[in-house]
Amino acid sequence: MQEQAVAWRHAGDEIGVVPTMGALHAGHDSLVARARRENQRVIVTVFVNPAQFGPNEDFARYPRPFDQDRARLEALGVDAIFHPAVDQIYPPAFKTRVDPGPLAEVLEGKSRPGHFAGVLTVVLKLFNLTQPKRAYFGQKDFQQVVLVRQLVRDFGLPVRIVAVPTVRHTDGLAISSRNAYLDPGQRQLAPAVHHAITEAAHGFAGGETDPVRLEALTRERLAATPGLVLDYVAVVDDTTLSRPAHAIPGNVLAVAVKLGSIRLIDNVVLGAERL
Amino acid sequence: MQEQAVAWRHAGDEIGVVPTMGALHAGHDSLVARARRENQRVIVTVFVNPAQFGPNEDFARYPRPFDQDRARLEALGVDAIFHPAVDQIYPPAFKTRVDPGPLAEVLEGKSRPGHFAGVLTVVLKLFNLTQPKRAYFGQKDFQQVVLVRQLVRDFGLPVRIVAVPTVRHTDGLAISSRNAYLDPGQRQLAPAVHHAITEAAHGFAGGETDPVRLEALTRERLAATPGLVLDYVAVVDDTTLSRPAHAIPGNVLAVAVKLGSIRLIDNVVLGAERL
Repeated sequence: MQEQAVAWRHAGDEIGVVPTMGALHAGHDSLVARARRENQRVIVTVFVNPAQFGPNEDFARYPRPFDQDRARLEALGVDAIFHPAVDQIYPPAFKTRVDPGPLAEVLEGKSRPGHFAGVLTVVLKLFNLTQPKRAYFGQKDFQQVVLVRQLVRDFGLPVRIVAVPTVRHTDGLAISSRNAYLDPGQRQLAPAVHHAITEAAHGFAGGETDPVRLEALTRERLAATPGLVLDYVAVVDDTTLSRPAHAIPGNVLAVAVKLGSIRLIDNVVLGAERL
Repeated sequence: MQEQAVAWRHAGDEIGVVPTMGALHAGHDSLVARARRENQRVIVTVFVNPAQFGPNEDFARYPRPFDQDRARLEALGVDAIFHPAVDQIYPPAFKTRVDPGPLAEVLEGKSRPGHFAGVLTVVLKLFNLTQPKRAYFGQKDFQQVVLVRQLVRDFGLPVRIVAVPTVRHTDGLAISSRNAYLDPGQRQLAPAVHHAITEAAHGFAGGETDPVRLEALTRERLAATPGLVLDYVAVVDDTTLSRPAHAIPGNVLAVAVKLGSIRLIDNVVLGAERL
Protein backbone atom coordinates (compact mmCIF):
# COMPACT_ATOMS: atom_id res chain seq x y z
CA MET A 1 0.00 0.00 0.00
CA GLN A 2 2.77 2.42 0.99
CA GLU A 3 4.50 2.26 -2.38
CA GLN A 4 1.26 3.04 -4.20
CA ALA A 5 0.47 5.88 -1.81
CA VAL A 6 3.94 7.39 -2.15
CA ALA A 7 3.63 7.19 -5.96
CA TRP A 8 0.30 9.03 -5.81
CA ARG A 9 1.77 11.74 -3.61
CA HIS A 10 4.76 12.11 -5.94
CA ALA A 11 2.38 12.45 -8.88
CA GLY A 12 0.83 15.40 -7.01
CA ASP A 13 -2.37 13.64 -5.93
CA GLU A 14 -3.75 14.42 -2.50
CA ILE A 15 -4.86 11.34 -0.60
CA GLY A 16 -7.86 11.18 1.71
CA VAL A 17 -7.86 8.25 4.12
CA VAL A 18 -10.82 6.81 5.99
CA PRO A 19 -9.65 4.44 8.75
CA THR A 20 -12.39 1.92 9.61
CA MET A 21 -12.83 -1.42 11.36
CA GLY A 22 -15.17 -2.55 8.56
CA ALA A 23 -18.82 -3.54 9.15
CA LEU A 24 -19.51 -0.43 7.15
CA HIS A 25 -22.71 1.57 7.50
CA ALA A 26 -24.17 4.94 6.48
CA GLY A 27 -21.79 6.70 8.90
CA HIS A 28 -18.80 5.36 6.99
CA ASP A 29 -20.48 6.23 3.68
CA SER A 30 -20.58 9.81 4.82
CA LEU A 31 -16.85 9.79 5.67
CA VAL A 32 -16.02 8.30 2.28
CA ALA A 33 -18.25 10.77 0.42
CA ARG A 34 -16.53 13.68 2.14
CA ALA A 35 -13.09 12.23 1.39
CA ARG A 36 -14.14 11.68 -2.24
CA ARG A 37 -15.13 15.36 -2.60
CA GLU A 38 -11.87 16.70 -1.13
CA ASN A 39 -9.09 14.48 -2.52
CA GLN A 40 -7.85 13.07 -5.80
CA ARG A 41 -7.34 9.66 -4.20
CA VAL A 42 -9.34 7.93 -1.49
CA ILE A 43 -8.02 5.00 0.53
CA VAL A 44 -10.27 3.19 3.01
CA THR A 45 -8.52 1.03 5.56
CA VAL A 46 -10.45 -1.95 6.96
CA PHE A 47 -8.72 -3.36 10.02
CA VAL A 48 -10.18 -4.65 13.27
CA ASN A 49 -7.36 -3.46 15.51
CA PRO A 50 -6.73 -5.89 18.37
CA ALA A 51 -4.66 -3.30 20.26
CA GLN A 52 -7.68 -1.10 20.95
CA PHE A 53 -9.84 -3.83 22.48
CA GLY A 54 -9.65 -4.65 26.16
CA PRO A 55 -9.32 -8.29 27.30
CA ASN A 56 -13.05 -8.48 28.08
CA GLU A 57 -14.22 -6.62 25.00
CA ASP A 58 -15.66 -7.83 21.74
CA PHE A 59 -12.57 -8.27 19.53
CA ALA A 60 -13.34 -11.88 18.65
CA ARG A 61 -17.02 -11.32 17.86
CA TYR A 62 -16.63 -7.91 16.24
CA PRO A 63 -18.36 -8.26 12.83
CA ARG A 64 -16.07 -8.76 9.79
CA PRO A 65 -18.29 -8.86 6.70
CA PHE A 66 -15.42 -8.04 4.34
CA ASP A 67 -17.04 -9.10 1.06
CA GLN A 68 -19.99 -6.82 1.73
CA ASP A 69 -17.65 -4.01 2.81
CA ARG A 70 -15.62 -4.34 -0.36
CA ALA A 71 -18.71 -4.24 -2.58
CA ARG A 72 -19.98 -1.19 -0.70
CA LEU A 73 -16.65 0.64 -1.11
CA GLU A 74 -16.39 -0.25 -4.77
CA ALA A 75 -19.87 1.20 -5.30
CA LEU A 76 -18.74 4.40 -3.55
CA GLY A 77 -15.75 4.63 -5.90
CA VAL A 78 -12.68 4.48 -3.68
CA ASP A 79 -9.21 4.17 -5.19
CA ALA A 80 -7.90 1.54 -2.80
CA ILE A 81 -9.03 -0.63 0.09
CA PHE A 82 -6.24 -1.45 2.54
CA HIS A 83 -7.23 -4.61 4.41
CA PRO A 84 -4.08 -5.83 6.15
CA ALA A 85 -3.76 -9.02 8.16
CA VAL A 86 -3.12 -8.58 11.89
CA ASP A 87 0.52 -9.69 11.59
CA GLN A 88 1.13 -7.23 8.76
CA ILE A 89 0.39 -4.41 11.22
CA TYR A 90 1.73 -6.20 14.30
CA PRO A 91 4.45 -8.66 13.26
CA PRO A 92 5.77 -10.92 16.04
CA ALA A 93 8.68 -8.57 16.89
CA PHE A 94 6.41 -5.49 17.17
CA LYS A 95 7.25 -3.48 20.30
CA THR A 96 6.78 0.28 19.81
CA ARG A 97 3.59 2.02 20.86
CA VAL A 98 2.15 5.49 21.08
CA ASP A 99 1.66 6.74 24.64
CA PRO A 100 -1.21 9.25 24.41
CA GLY A 101 -0.73 10.75 27.86
CA PRO A 102 -3.39 11.83 30.37
CA LEU A 103 -6.28 12.59 27.96
CA ALA A 104 -6.45 8.87 27.26
CA GLU A 105 -7.30 8.20 30.93
CA VAL A 106 -10.60 10.09 31.16
CA LEU A 107 -14.14 9.51 29.80
CA GLU A 108 -13.89 6.51 27.45
CA GLY A 109 -10.33 5.85 28.61
CA LYS A 110 -11.47 5.37 32.19
CA SER A 111 -13.75 2.50 31.17
CA ARG A 112 -11.37 1.25 28.49
CA PRO A 113 -7.76 1.27 29.73
CA GLY A 114 -5.25 1.03 26.89
CA HIS A 115 -7.92 1.71 24.27
CA PHE A 116 -6.53 5.01 22.97
CA ALA A 117 -2.91 3.84 23.03
CA GLY A 118 -4.11 1.07 20.70
CA VAL A 119 -6.06 3.52 18.55
CA LEU A 120 -3.20 6.01 18.18
CA THR A 121 -0.63 3.30 17.51
CA VAL A 122 -2.64 1.89 14.62
CA VAL A 123 -3.69 5.30 13.31
CA LEU A 124 -0.06 6.45 13.20
CA LYS A 125 0.98 3.29 11.40
CA LEU A 126 -1.93 3.47 8.96
CA PHE A 127 -1.07 7.11 8.22
CA ASN A 128 2.52 6.14 7.47
CA LEU A 129 1.36 3.34 5.18
CA THR A 130 -1.25 5.43 3.33
CA GLN A 131 0.32 8.92 3.31
CA PRO A 132 -2.88 10.96 3.70
CA LYS A 133 -3.17 14.69 3.22
CA ARG A 134 -6.52 14.43 5.05
CA ALA A 135 -8.00 11.75 7.29
CA TYR A 136 -11.67 11.39 8.14
CA PHE A 137 -13.14 10.34 11.47
CA GLY A 138 -16.70 10.21 12.75
CA GLN A 139 -17.67 12.76 15.35
CA LYS A 140 -19.48 10.03 17.27
CA ASP A 141 -16.07 8.92 18.53
CA PHE A 142 -15.39 12.40 19.84
CA GLN A 143 -12.53 11.59 22.20
CA GLN A 144 -10.84 9.62 19.43
CA VAL A 145 -10.94 12.76 17.24
CA VAL A 146 -9.45 14.83 20.08
CA LEU A 147 -6.64 12.34 20.64
CA VAL A 148 -5.86 11.85 16.96
CA ARG A 149 -5.64 15.62 16.59
CA GLN A 150 -3.30 15.70 19.58
CA LEU A 151 -1.17 12.98 17.95
CA VAL A 152 -0.96 14.98 14.72
CA ARG A 153 -0.09 18.19 16.53
CA ASP A 154 2.41 16.68 18.97
CA PHE A 155 4.27 14.58 16.39
CA GLY A 156 4.03 17.13 13.56
CA LEU A 157 2.24 14.80 11.14
CA PRO A 158 1.45 16.52 7.83
CA VAL A 159 -2.20 15.39 7.94
CA ARG A 160 -5.43 17.31 8.45
CA ILE A 161 -7.97 15.55 10.66
CA VAL A 162 -11.54 16.07 9.44
CA ALA A 163 -14.35 15.27 11.90
CA VAL A 164 -17.56 14.34 10.10
CA PRO A 165 -20.96 14.81 11.80
CA THR A 166 -22.61 11.71 13.21
CA VAL A 167 -25.16 9.99 10.98
CA ARG A 168 -28.34 8.88 12.79
CA HIS A 169 -31.26 6.58 12.36
CA THR A 170 -34.57 8.42 11.90
CA ASP A 171 -35.32 7.96 15.61
CA GLY A 172 -32.07 9.72 16.53
CA LEU A 173 -29.85 6.77 17.52
CA ALA A 174 -26.29 7.31 16.29
CA ILE A 175 -25.47 4.67 13.69
CA SER A 176 -22.82 2.25 14.99
CA SER A 177 -21.66 -1.25 14.12
CA ARG A 178 -22.25 -2.19 17.74
CA ASN A 179 -25.99 -1.36 17.48
CA ALA A 180 -26.29 -4.83 15.94
CA TYR A 181 -25.71 -6.24 19.44
CA LEU A 182 -28.89 -4.59 20.80
CA ASP A 183 -31.96 -6.78 21.25
CA PRO A 184 -35.28 -5.31 20.05
CA GLY A 185 -36.19 -3.98 23.50
CA GLN A 186 -32.80 -2.31 23.97
CA ARG A 187 -32.94 -0.95 20.43
CA GLN A 188 -36.21 0.80 21.29
CA LEU A 189 -34.69 2.41 24.40
CA ALA A 190 -31.40 3.45 22.77
CA PRO A 191 -32.57 6.72 21.14
CA ALA A 192 -33.07 8.11 24.67
CA VAL A 193 -29.36 8.93 24.64
CA HIS A 194 -29.69 11.25 21.68
CA HIS A 195 -32.87 12.79 23.07
CA ALA A 196 -31.19 13.54 26.40
CA ILE A 197 -28.16 15.29 24.91
CA THR A 198 -30.31 17.15 22.42
CA GLU A 199 -32.42 18.48 25.27
CA ALA A 200 -29.26 19.63 27.06
CA ALA A 201 -28.06 21.29 23.85
CA HIS A 202 -31.41 23.11 23.67
CA GLY A 203 -30.85 24.17 27.27
CA PHE A 204 -27.49 25.63 26.24
CA ALA A 205 -29.08 27.38 23.25
CA GLY A 206 -31.66 28.77 25.70
CA GLY A 207 -28.96 30.33 27.88
CA GLU A 208 -27.89 27.63 30.34
CA THR A 209 -24.09 27.74 30.42
CA ASP A 210 -23.40 25.98 33.73
CA PRO A 211 -21.76 22.69 32.69
CA VAL A 212 -22.81 21.02 35.92
CA ARG A 213 -26.46 21.88 35.26
CA LEU A 214 -26.22 20.77 31.63
CA GLU A 215 -24.82 17.46 32.83
CA ALA A 216 -27.54 17.17 35.48
CA LEU A 217 -30.22 17.85 32.85
CA THR A 218 -28.84 15.00 30.74
CA ARG A 219 -28.57 12.71 33.74
CA GLU A 220 -32.18 13.34 34.78
CA ARG A 221 -33.48 12.75 31.29
CA LEU A 222 -31.54 9.48 31.05
CA ALA A 223 -32.73 8.36 34.48
CA ALA A 224 -36.25 8.37 33.09
CA THR A 225 -35.30 5.47 30.80
CA PRO A 226 -35.41 2.22 32.77
CA GLY A 227 -32.65 -0.31 32.02
CA LEU A 228 -30.25 2.35 30.82
CA VAL A 229 -27.21 2.71 33.10
CA LEU A 230 -25.17 5.88 32.88
CA ASP A 231 -21.38 5.54 32.67
CA TYR A 232 -20.51 9.23 32.33
CA VAL A 233 -21.88 12.53 31.14
CA ALA A 234 -19.47 15.44 30.75
CA VAL A 235 -19.32 18.90 29.23
CA VAL A 236 -15.74 19.37 28.08
CA ASP A 237 -13.40 21.56 26.08
CA ASP A 238 -12.78 20.00 22.67
CA THR A 239 -8.96 20.09 23.04
CA THR A 240 -8.16 19.71 26.73
CA LEU A 241 -11.17 17.55 27.70
CA SER A 242 -11.44 19.57 30.89
CA ARG A 243 -14.77 20.94 32.11
CA PRO A 244 -15.07 24.68 31.39
CA ALA A 245 -16.21 27.08 34.11
CA HIS A 246 -18.95 28.17 31.71
CA ALA A 247 -19.93 26.27 28.60
CA ILE A 248 -19.18 28.05 25.34
CA PRO A 249 -20.02 27.18 21.73
CA GLY A 250 -17.73 24.39 20.56
CA ASN A 251 -17.68 22.63 23.94
CA VAL A 252 -18.87 19.06 23.74
CA LEU A 253 -21.45 17.24 25.83
CA ALA A 254 -20.37 13.59 25.76
CA VAL A 255 -22.19 10.64 27.21
CA ALA A 256 -21.73 6.88 27.61
CA VAL A 257 -24.37 4.45 28.80
CA LYS A 258 -24.88 0.75 29.08
CA LEU A 259 -27.93 -1.16 27.95
CA GLY A 260 -27.40 -4.60 29.40
CA SER A 261 -23.83 -5.44 28.40
CA ILE A 262 -23.87 -3.12 25.39
CA ARG A 263 -22.04 0.18 25.74
CA LEU A 264 -23.28 3.14 23.68
CA ILE A 265 -21.65 6.55 23.30
CA ASP A 266 -22.90 9.76 21.78
CA ASN A 267 -22.19 13.47 21.97
CA VAL A 268 -23.32 16.86 20.80
CA VAL A 269 -21.27 19.96 20.05
CA LEU A 270 -22.87 22.85 21.93
CA GLY A 271 -23.94 25.73 19.69
CA ALA A 272 -22.36 24.21 16.59
CA GLU A 273 -22.95 21.58 13.95
CA ARG A 274 -19.52 19.99 14.16
CA LEU A 275 -16.15 19.76 15.84
CA MET B 1 10.83 23.40 7.85
CA GLN B 2 8.07 20.92 6.99
CA GLU B 3 6.72 23.00 4.12
CA GLN B 4 10.17 23.27 2.54
CA ALA B 5 10.79 19.55 3.00
CA VAL B 6 7.42 18.60 1.49
CA ALA B 7 8.15 20.89 -1.47
CA TRP B 8 11.51 19.18 -2.05
CA ARG B 9 9.91 15.75 -1.90
CA HIS B 10 7.19 16.85 -4.34
CA ALA B 11 9.89 18.12 -6.68
CA GLY B 12 11.32 14.59 -6.64
CA ASP B 13 14.32 15.32 -4.43
CA GLU B 14 15.34 12.71 -1.89
CA ILE B 15 16.13 14.17 1.52
CA GLY B 16 18.84 12.90 3.83
CA VAL B 17 18.49 13.97 7.45
CA VAL B 18 21.20 14.03 10.11
CA PRO B 19 19.66 14.49 13.58
CA THR B 20 22.19 16.01 16.00
CA MET B 21 22.33 17.78 19.34
CA GLY B 22 24.92 20.20 17.93
CA ALA B 23 28.44 20.56 19.38
CA LEU B 24 29.46 19.09 16.07
CA HIS B 25 32.65 17.12 15.58
CA ALA B 26 34.31 14.85 13.03
CA GLY B 27 31.75 12.11 13.75
CA HIS B 28 28.94 14.41 12.62
CA ASP B 29 31.00 15.47 9.60
CA SER B 30 31.11 11.86 8.54
CA LEU B 31 27.30 11.54 8.84
CA VAL B 32 26.80 14.69 6.82
CA ALA B 33 29.29 13.61 4.13
CA ARG B 34 27.50 10.30 3.73
CA ALA B 35 24.11 12.04 3.55
CA ARG B 36 25.53 14.48 0.98
CA ARG B 37 26.67 11.60 -1.26
CA GLU B 38 23.33 9.78 -1.15
CA ASN B 39 20.66 12.49 -1.36
CA GLN B 40 19.74 15.54 -3.41
CA ARG B 41 18.93 17.48 -0.23
CA VAL B 42 20.57 17.32 3.19
CA ILE B 43 18.95 18.68 6.34
CA VAL B 44 20.85 18.72 9.63
CA THR B 45 18.76 19.13 12.76
CA VAL B 46 20.43 20.75 15.77
CA PHE B 47 18.34 20.26 18.89
CA VAL B 48 19.39 19.48 22.45
CA ASN B 49 16.38 17.34 23.31
CA PRO B 50 15.36 17.76 26.96
CA ALA B 51 13.17 14.62 26.83
CA GLN B 52 16.18 12.31 26.50
CA PHE B 53 18.06 13.66 29.52
CA GLY B 54 17.43 12.28 32.98
CA PRO B 55 16.87 14.66 35.92
CA ASN B 56 20.50 14.24 37.07
CA GLU B 57 22.04 14.38 33.61
CA ASP B 58 23.80 17.18 31.78
CA PHE B 59 20.96 18.88 29.87
CA ALA B 60 21.70 22.34 31.25
CA ARG B 61 25.44 22.19 30.70
CA TYR B 62 25.37 20.28 27.40
CA PRO B 63 27.43 22.43 24.99
CA ARG B 64 25.48 24.62 22.53
CA PRO B 65 28.03 26.36 20.26
CA PHE B 66 25.46 27.11 17.57
CA ASP B 67 27.38 29.76 15.64
CA GLN B 68 30.31 27.38 15.23
CA ASP B 69 27.95 24.53 14.30
CA ARG B 70 26.27 26.67 11.64
CA ALA B 71 29.60 27.71 10.11
CA ARG B 72 30.73 24.08 10.08
CA LEU B 73 27.54 22.91 8.36
CA GLU B 74 27.66 25.72 5.81
CA ALA B 75 31.21 24.69 4.96
CA LEU B 76 30.00 21.10 4.49
CA GLY B 77 27.31 22.32 2.09
CA VAL B 78 24.01 21.31 3.67
CA ASP B 79 20.71 22.54 2.23
CA ALA B 80 19.08 23.40 5.53
CA ILE B 81 19.81 23.56 9.24
CA PHE B 82 16.76 22.96 11.41
CA HIS B 83 17.43 24.50 14.81
CA PRO B 84 14.07 24.64 16.59
CA ALA B 85 13.42 26.16 20.00
CA VAL B 86 12.37 23.73 22.74
CA ASP B 87 8.76 24.94 22.71
CA GLN B 88 8.55 24.51 18.96
CA ILE B 89 9.11 20.78 19.48
CA TYR B 90 7.38 20.58 22.86
CA PRO B 91 4.72 23.29 23.09
CA PRO B 92 3.02 23.67 26.49
CA ALA B 93 0.13 21.34 25.55
CA PHE B 94 2.45 18.57 24.31
CA LYS B 95 1.33 15.16 25.66
CA THR B 96 1.99 12.31 23.21
CA ARG B 97 5.11 10.17 23.44
CA VAL B 98 6.62 7.12 21.85
CA ASP B 99 6.76 4.08 24.12
CA PRO B 100 9.72 2.04 22.85
CA GLY B 101 8.92 -1.12 24.81
CA PRO B 102 11.34 -3.50 26.56
CA LEU B 103 14.48 -2.88 24.46
CA ALA B 104 14.61 0.58 26.01
CA GLU B 105 15.03 -0.94 29.48
CA VAL B 106 18.34 -2.74 28.95
CA LEU B 107 21.99 -1.62 28.55
CA GLU B 108 21.90 2.19 28.26
CA GLY B 109 18.22 2.19 29.20
CA LYS B 110 18.95 0.55 32.53
CA SER B 111 21.23 3.44 33.53
CA ARG B 112 19.11 6.05 31.79
CA PRO B 113 15.38 5.44 32.42
CA GLY B 114 13.19 7.32 29.93
CA HIS B 115 16.15 8.13 27.69
CA PHE B 116 15.02 6.17 24.64
CA ALA B 117 11.38 7.23 24.94
CA GLY B 118 12.73 10.79 24.71
CA VAL B 119 14.98 9.90 21.77
CA LEU B 120 12.27 8.14 19.77
CA THR B 121 9.70 10.84 20.45
CA VAL B 122 11.95 13.55 19.08
CA VAL B 123 13.25 11.42 16.20
CA LEU B 124 9.70 10.65 15.08
CA LYS B 125 8.75 14.32 15.26
CA LEU B 126 11.93 15.43 13.46
CA PHE B 127 11.27 12.86 10.72
CA ASN B 128 7.76 14.21 10.25
CA LEU B 129 9.07 17.76 10.07
CA THR B 130 11.93 16.99 7.66
CA GLN B 131 10.50 14.15 5.52
CA PRO B 132 13.68 12.14 5.05
CA LYS B 133 14.15 9.30 2.59
CA ARG B 134 17.27 8.38 4.61
CA ALA B 135 18.41 9.30 8.11
CA TYR B 136 21.96 9.01 9.41
CA PHE B 137 23.01 7.96 12.91
CA GLY B 138 26.41 7.24 14.42
CA GLN B 139 27.16 3.63 15.23
CA LYS B 140 28.66 4.76 18.54
CA ASP B 141 25.10 5.11 19.84
CA PHE B 142 24.40 1.52 18.89
CA GLN B 143 21.28 0.95 20.97
CA GLN B 144 19.84 4.18 19.60
CA VAL B 145 20.28 2.81 16.08
CA VAL B 146 18.56 -0.44 17.08
CA LEU B 147 15.62 1.40 18.63
CA VAL B 148 15.23 3.90 15.78
CA ARG B 149 15.19 0.97 13.34
CA GLN B 150 12.53 -0.67 15.51
CA LEU B 151 10.51 2.57 15.45
CA VAL B 152 10.73 2.71 11.67
CA ARG B 153 9.77 -0.94 11.26
CA ASP B 154 6.97 -0.95 13.83
CA PHE B 155 5.32 2.28 12.67
CA GLY B 156 5.96 1.73 8.96
CA LEU B 157 7.92 4.96 8.46
CA PRO B 158 9.12 5.37 4.86
CA VAL B 159 12.70 6.12 5.98
CA ARG B 160 15.91 4.13 5.67
CA ILE B 161 18.15 4.27 8.76
CA VAL B 162 21.83 4.40 7.86
CA ALA B 163 24.33 3.60 10.63
CA VAL B 164 27.68 5.27 10.02
CA PRO B 165 30.90 3.81 11.52
CA THR B 166 32.29 5.54 14.60
CA VAL B 167 35.00 8.12 13.99
CA ARG B 168 37.91 7.91 16.44
CA HIS B 169 40.80 9.95 17.69
CA THR B 170 44.20 8.57 16.64
CA ASP B 171 44.52 6.87 20.04
CA GLY B 172 41.24 5.00 19.46
CA LEU B 173 38.84 6.97 21.67
CA ALA B 174 35.45 7.33 19.99
CA ILE B 175 34.83 11.00 19.22
CA SER B 176 31.98 12.37 21.35
CA SER B 177 30.80 15.79 22.47
CA ARG B 178 30.98 14.52 26.04
CA ASN B 179 34.74 13.86 25.78
CA ALA B 180 35.10 17.58 26.50
CA TYR B 181 34.08 16.79 30.10
CA LEU B 182 37.17 14.57 30.63
CA ASP B 183 40.09 16.04 32.57
CA PRO B 184 43.57 15.39 31.11
CA GLY B 185 44.15 12.32 33.28
CA GLN B 186 40.78 10.79 32.36
CA ARG B 187 41.34 11.65 28.71
CA GLN B 188 44.53 9.60 28.80
CA LEU B 189 42.76 6.58 30.28
CA ALA B 190 39.69 6.75 28.02
CA PRO B 191 41.14 4.90 24.98
CA ALA B 192 41.30 1.77 27.14
CA VAL B 193 37.63 1.22 26.28
CA HIS B 194 38.37 0.95 22.58
CA HIS B 195 41.42 -1.21 23.19
CA ALA B 196 39.43 -3.64 25.34
CA ILE B 197 36.62 -4.16 22.82
CA THR B 198 39.11 -4.37 19.96
CA GLU B 199 40.93 -7.14 21.78
CA ALA B 200 37.64 -9.00 22.28
CA ALA B 201 36.85 -8.53 18.58
CA HIS B 202 40.24 -10.04 17.77
CA GLY B 203 39.34 -12.91 20.06
CA PHE B 204 36.17 -13.45 18.04
CA ALA B 205 38.15 -13.27 14.78
CA GLY B 206 40.48 -15.88 16.29
CA GLY B 207 37.62 -18.32 16.90
CA GLU B 208 36.20 -17.40 20.34
CA THR B 209 32.40 -17.43 19.92
CA ASP B 210 31.31 -17.79 23.55
CA PRO B 211 29.70 -14.42 24.37
CA VAL B 212 30.33 -14.89 28.08
CA ARG B 213 34.04 -15.36 27.44
CA LEU B 214 34.18 -12.39 25.05
CA GLU B 215 32.54 -10.28 27.74
CA ALA B 216 34.97 -11.61 30.37
CA LEU B 217 37.91 -10.78 28.12
CA THR B 218 36.69 -7.20 27.83
CA ARG B 219 36.01 -6.97 31.55
CA GLU B 220 39.52 -8.19 32.44
CA ARG B 221 41.16 -5.79 30.05
CA LEU B 222 39.15 -2.88 31.47
CA ALA B 223 39.93 -3.92 35.06
CA ALA B 224 43.59 -3.27 34.25
CA THR B 225 42.79 0.44 33.90
CA PRO B 226 42.57 2.04 37.35
CA GLY B 227 39.83 4.64 37.84
CA LEU B 228 37.66 3.19 35.12
CA VAL B 229 34.41 1.71 36.48
CA LEU B 230 32.48 -0.72 34.29
CA ASP B 231 28.73 -0.19 33.91
CA TYR B 232 28.04 -3.05 31.47
CA VAL B 233 29.64 -5.14 28.79
CA ALA B 234 27.38 -7.25 26.59
CA VAL B 235 27.51 -9.28 23.39
CA VAL B 236 24.09 -8.90 21.80
CA ASP B 237 22.07 -9.53 18.67
CA ASP B 238 21.76 -6.29 16.68
CA THR B 239 17.95 -6.45 16.52
CA THR B 240 16.73 -8.16 19.69
CA LEU B 241 19.54 -7.02 22.02
CA SER B 242 19.54 -10.48 23.55
CA ARG B 243 22.75 -12.42 24.14
CA PRO B 244 23.24 -15.11 21.48
CA ALA B 245 24.16 -18.66 22.50
CA HIS B 246 27.18 -18.34 20.21
CA ALA B 247 28.43 -15.05 18.81
CA ILE B 248 28.10 -14.68 15.05
CA PRO B 249 29.30 -11.97 12.66
CA GLY B 250 27.06 -8.92 13.02
CA ASN B 251 26.60 -9.35 16.77
CA VAL B 252 27.67 -6.32 18.73
CA LEU B 253 29.94 -6.07 21.75
CA ALA B 254 28.76 -2.98 23.62
CA VAL B 255 30.31 -1.40 26.67
CA ALA B 256 29.67 1.50 29.03
CA VAL B 257 32.12 2.76 31.67
CA LYS B 258 32.46 5.67 34.03
CA LEU B 259 35.55 7.76 34.47
CA GLY B 260 34.74 9.82 37.54
CA SER B 261 31.27 11.20 36.82
CA ILE B 262 31.72 10.97 33.04
CA ARG B 263 29.97 8.11 31.28
CA LEU B 264 31.52 6.76 28.07
CA ILE B 265 30.06 4.20 25.68
CA ASP B 266 31.55 2.35 22.78
CA ASN B 267 30.97 -0.81 20.76
CA VAL B 268 32.32 -3.01 18.03
CA VAL B 269 30.48 -5.09 15.46
CA LEU B 270 31.96 -8.58 15.56
CA GLY B 271 33.35 -9.74 12.22
CA ALA B 272 32.08 -6.69 10.35
CA GLU B 273 32.84 -3.06 9.71
CA ARG B 274 29.37 -1.75 10.41
CA LEU B 275 25.81 -2.38 11.57
